[in-house]
Amino acid sequence: MTGAAPDRERFARIALSFVAEPGDLVLGALLRACSPAEAFAAICDGRLPGTVDAAGRGGVPGLARATERWAARLGSVPTDARLAAWQRAGMRVICPGDTEWPTQLDVLGDARPLVLWLRGSADLRFTCLQSVSVVGARAATGYGEHVATEMAAALAERGWTVVSGGAYGIDASAHRGALGADGVTIAVLASGLEYGYPKGHHELFAAVAGQGVVVSECPPDRAPSRPGFLVRNRVIAALSCGTVVVEAALRSGALSTARHARDLCRPLMAVPGPVTSSQSEGCHEIIRQWGAVCVTRARDVIENVSPAGEGLADRRCGPVFPRDSLDEETTAVLEAIPGRSGGGPAAIAIAAGVDLNTAIRCLGVLAAAGFVERCARGWRVRKNA
Amino acid sequence: MTGAAPDRERFARIALSFVAEPGDLVLGALLRACSPAEAFAAICDGRLPGTVDAAGRGGVPGLARATERWAARLGSVPTDARLAAWQRAGMRVICPGDTEWPTQLDVLGDARPLVLWLRGSADLRFTCLQSVSVVGARAATGYGEHVATEMAAALAERGWTVVSGGAYGIDASAHRGALGADGVTIAVLASGLEYGYPKGHHELFAAVAGQGVVVSECPPDRAPSRPGFLVRNRVIAALSCGTVVVEAALRSGALSTARHARDLCRPLMAVPGPVTSSQSEGCHEIIRQWGAVCVTRARDVIENVSPAGEGLADRRCGPVFPRDSLDEETTAVLEAIPGRSGGGPAAIAIAAGVDLNTAIRCLGVLAAAGFVERCARGWRVRKNA
Repeated sequence: MTGAAPDRERFARIALSFVAEPGDLVLGALLRACSPAEAFAAICDGRLPGTVDAAGRGGVPGLARATERWAARLGSVPTDARLAAWQRAGMRVICPGDTEWPTQLDVLGDARPLVLWLRGSADLRFTCLQSVSVVGARAATGYGEHVATEMAAALAERGWTVVSGGAYGIDASAHRGALGADGVTIAVLASGLEYGYPKGHHELFAAVAGQGVVVSECPPDRAPSRPGFLVRNRVIAALSCGTVVVEAALRSGALSTARHARDLCRPLMAVPGPVTSSQSEGCHEIIRQWGAVCVTRARDVIENVSPAGEGLADRRCGPVFPRDSLDEETTAVLEAIPGRSGGGPAAIAIAAGVDLNTAIRCLGVLAAAGFVERCARGWRVRKNA
Repeated sequence: MTGAAPDRERFARIALSFVAEPGDLVLGALLRACSPAEAFAAICDGRLPGTVDAAGRGGVPGLARATERWAARLGSVPTDARLAAWQRAGMRVICPGDTEWPTQLDVLGDARPLVLWLRGSADLRFTCLQSVSVVGARAATGYGEHVATEMAAALAERGWTVVSGGAYGIDASAHRGALGADGVTIAVLASGLEYGYPKGHHELFAAVAGQGVVVSECPPDRAPSRPGFLVRNRVIAALSCGTVVVEAALRSGALSTARHARDLCRPLMAVPGPVTSSQSEGCHEIIRQWGAVCVTRARDVIENVSPAGEGLADRRCGPVFPRDSLDEETTAVLEAIPGRSGGGPAAIAIAAGVDLNTAIRCLGVLAAAGFVERCARGWRVRKNA
């Protein structure tokens, strides 16, 4: 991004996310060779972006056709006024390098999302640090919905964020279980946030935004496409520390999330069910064939996604240095954390009279020093701090 | 057994099985040092059996107390008339070295049964060569009984013998599934055959004897003891090529059979079920913690217990040498095998006019040469033979 103003690069990234499909590997490869602003300028000018020498070498395979495709969609790039309207409507857009950007998405390489649109009160990066994806079939059984709800509630009660896809069936049960336990949940949509697919989950998404975040890599007004669901699943797998499949038929889309988790070497788990139920066949298949761990309750899940030796029992340790050695801003943030129930970084920032980025930085310092710990609502003061 | 008449050794083995408990490790260790007849004679004479030198070394640990215990029960040793009466009532007793003795029991070492009492039409050794144990909880659910019945029937249809413990619940469903599919099944009881525990399964045991074998290492009139059930489970695991647990709570006795299978390095499998059912908790536990394979249907089971590359598809190959090169007895046995449905060795022996041992030997030759194959009822002529 040499020489480019951050705002220009930011706008270019957002613009590129309107002309390219999510997970476009040609664009991903191109952005290793040039900055988003350079790539976008070339597309606007009708030039081939990237650094190609006189003999045509050094180019990205498929770039010429991809550039035509992107150029054809330049009309969908929003005006500044449109972007501002979406932001006024409660959406924020984050880019790699932003404080709230979840760096665990970097493992996706060229398929890393260009930007993420967010709506909600929770900080995406922090809430994902201790998160589990709970996914499964839309055509779930009563059994599957019951298990997903209970498991998500138990995970949320133990301070784990529940990530899912916002779909009917298991996904919705997972979100609702976490919400019911007053926990944080993240819905990663295959449509844009304004479009909000499925429409029937309008209220669910509002509730998720109230206690967590609704996330999409698509432009806010974008309808979901059939391949878009599978592409979205890589984000669910990459955001979370591990993936649990609660119910899935043999050809269920939930198995695509499982495949991404496996390919990313993240812990993969499945809940068994009756062998007489076709909605559990996919779970049994990945236990037998992929080595997914057979989990029956939240404790099993936490054991599998925690670093060795953690997650088995509560760790208890005090601060590593005295409170009066903290600087002024950090002390203000520590004092702004609301009681035992804790709060999100945004609320803490306001209470401390600092900006969000400062609050997040200070919370990081306080966590590392043992003064604060994460909880379902964000951050709270440690009992012995 | 130097210098001892086989009949004397045979009677001594039977007598010892009346004075010692099944799986008595002291007696097992003793029988590595002396013959059954020598051991029994010493017990009768009030001497310490085995070879102990002048300094008392070379003895078996715990032998003195065990000998007292055995001597106290000498009154239970049956007369020849009593033994003959049991045999007239349809029971036969086999010892290691007998043609029908299943040599796979030798892996039990000192815990190998002294003798086995059998009742039934099938040949124990041959039927066990291709067998699977299907075991589980007595307090089974409708789900577990359904799965056990279906799985046993499908195994039997594919020529696999179903071994189980004759108990209520999963065991009974497994036996009934195999019987319903016109297959061979083996019930290994924790009581003697005449006692026939549980009493409510009198008719089931008669049906098993009609198409398979009822087996016990206990004297025929012996009632079951609480530890006897766990000791019996080693025989179930050792007789079969692999063990499937269909339903088991966390402390179910079925898990003791699973533990024996694991310790004997035999394939161990478990059927998953609803995580909301305590009767499936043991299955999920051994999948997660013991590495039991998650199986959902008979085909999965057969894949796991078959040698690599077998069990995946029907093998088809013709005889390795022409029919007219067979000797007279072998030809007689081949011609005595009843049609496509096949028959057991005993029936074939009678039809061929040879004794049982000769029939079994000839069937082995014919199988190796590709003329005959095993089936649910015993042996049948191969399609292309």
